[in-house]
Amino acid sequence: MPSEYRLRRRVQFYETDAAGIVHFSWFFRYMEEAEHALWREAGLSIHPPESDIGWPRVAASCDFHGALRFEDEFDVSIHVEAVTRKTIRYACLLTRGDTKIATGSMTIACVRKRPNQSMESIEIPADIAARFV
Amino acid sequence: MPSEYRLRRRVQFYETDAAGIVHFSWFFRYMEEAEHALWREAGLSIHPPESDIGWPRVAASCDFHGALRFEDEFDVSIHVEAVTRKTIRYACLLTRGDTKIATGSMTIACVRKRPNQSMESIEIPADIAARFV
Amino acid sequence: MPSEYRLRRRVQFYETDAAGIVHFSWFFRYMEEAEHALWREAGLSIHPPESDIGWPRVAASCDFHGALRFEDEFDVSIHVEAVTRKTIRYACLLTRGDTKIATGSMTIACVRKRPNQSMESIEIPADIAARFV
Amino acid sequence: MPSEYRLRRRVQFYETDAAGIVHFSWFFRYMEEAEHALWREAGLSIHPPESDIGWPRVAASCDFHGALRFEDEFDVSIHVEAVTRKTIRYACLLTRGDTKIATGSMTIACVRKRPNQSMESIEIPADIAARFV
Repeated sequence: MPSEYRLRRRVQFYETDAAGIVHFSWFFRYMEEAEHALWREAGLSIHPPESDIGWPRVAASCDFHGALRFEDEFDVSIHVEAVTRKTIRYACLLTRGDTKIATGSMTIACVRKRPNQSMESIEIPADIAARFV
Repeated sequence: MPSEYRLRRRVQFYETDAAGIVHFSWFFRYMEEAEHALWREAGLSIHPPESDIGWPRVAASCDFHGALRFEDEFDVSIHVEAVTRKTIRYACLLTRGDTKIATGSMTIACVRKRPNQSMESIEIPADIAARFV
Repeated sequence: MPSEYRLRRRVQFYETDAAGIVHFSWFFRYMEEAEHALWREAGLSIHPPESDIGWPRVAASCDFHGALRFEDEFDVSIHVEAVTRKTIRYACLLTRGDTKIATGSMTIACVRKRPNQSMESIEIPADIAARFV
Repeated sequence: MPSEYRLRRRVQFYETDAAGIVHFSWFFRYMEEAEHALWREAGLSIHPPESDIGWPRVAASCDFHGALRFEDEFDVSIHVEAVTRKTIRYACLLTRGDTKIATGSMTIACVRKRPNQSMESIEIPADIAARFV
């Protein structure tokens, strides 16, 4: 069962800021990109059309050890660190060659969207949980 | 009837790029911010919860005459240039003090979202059109 | 000395995602917006033109307790939690009315940019540290 | 001489908005991604470290014919439409399979950055112009 994924990525110009480096908010998007690629690798989409199940983040964190610049190539490695009844936690590592750029984690919760737009926390469907264990 | 709006805005750091200026893609977001403020001024929301009507862009353009930098204060003036049966066209002007920074235009179309996610072009509801004439 | 700031903000359409809520990466930008407003309140800019001093993030985290939707008004409260010789740590709270939406923290480090683009960690200039103590 | 490029791309979740489709501002970023890939194909970087030459947009426009949704794969084709003494104009086409999604254009100008941050329009260096003719 695939429970880890490595994404190769290049820094786009619109991801940089006036300090000449990738803006820190992008690191969270990079981690999410790797997460969604992991789901596809597992034969799933994290956001299928028409589905009433969603996966909001309940926590996200990142420690920044180095900077990324325009056109840098780098890797985002993600692996499933824990699956509980209602949440999945990932650990991430960003590297440029042998240089550690950042480490991070994200925790997502499984929710059902109610007609009134609100969301209730639910147990992860068994067929999904089975893909990540 | 309000058919124009002036938005005062300050450049955020994450809107700048490695050239030290606001990335051009942001100008389109600035114009949209002013548009949505104009709708609120008219007593409307362009995206009310639960509505099956939407307003995708069909065209957007911008000419850039100057640059904006971190913490610059600037104005986005928008006015309704034309309302047709199914579309609304806006003209926009961005200025920093007396300096013209950019001019732009956007055309939006009224659509109904079908259950299968696709969208069909429809006539602008009369009560909405009435607010912008 | 100002060591806290409350920013009133409205959700923009481009900050939402296909789940109908603000994408989690935006919460980090909201926190940074409040930080920069705090610096301005203290009579400073975190990124003055021509300066060779910068303030990259070394850590950022956020716990998400609720969702924000298009046109929601919310507040971002930030305060300086700790100033060390080379870093500043902030604590943040996002609320919509009385509802807690998120809590977060960011740590920034003071660096000097070398001509070759690399950055070296330096002590926070005394006149800057004095503004936040 | 390479004067066109086709970029294969997948829609990321953070590129979608609450209407369930890619936010229109992203189309301009997609076009820029393809442009920078074209420059790399030509053996160039549009923003080399330490360079005092830059390439701000002077105009950008897009007509939207269809929508892109989360995880859609699509192509961005860009070609150099005109090179003048001081500007380059591109034409772009976005397609998903055989479906035309958008057409766009961008014009960039060659500038030299002055020490005081301002930019002056200059002639395109001959060795760069030669790559795109």
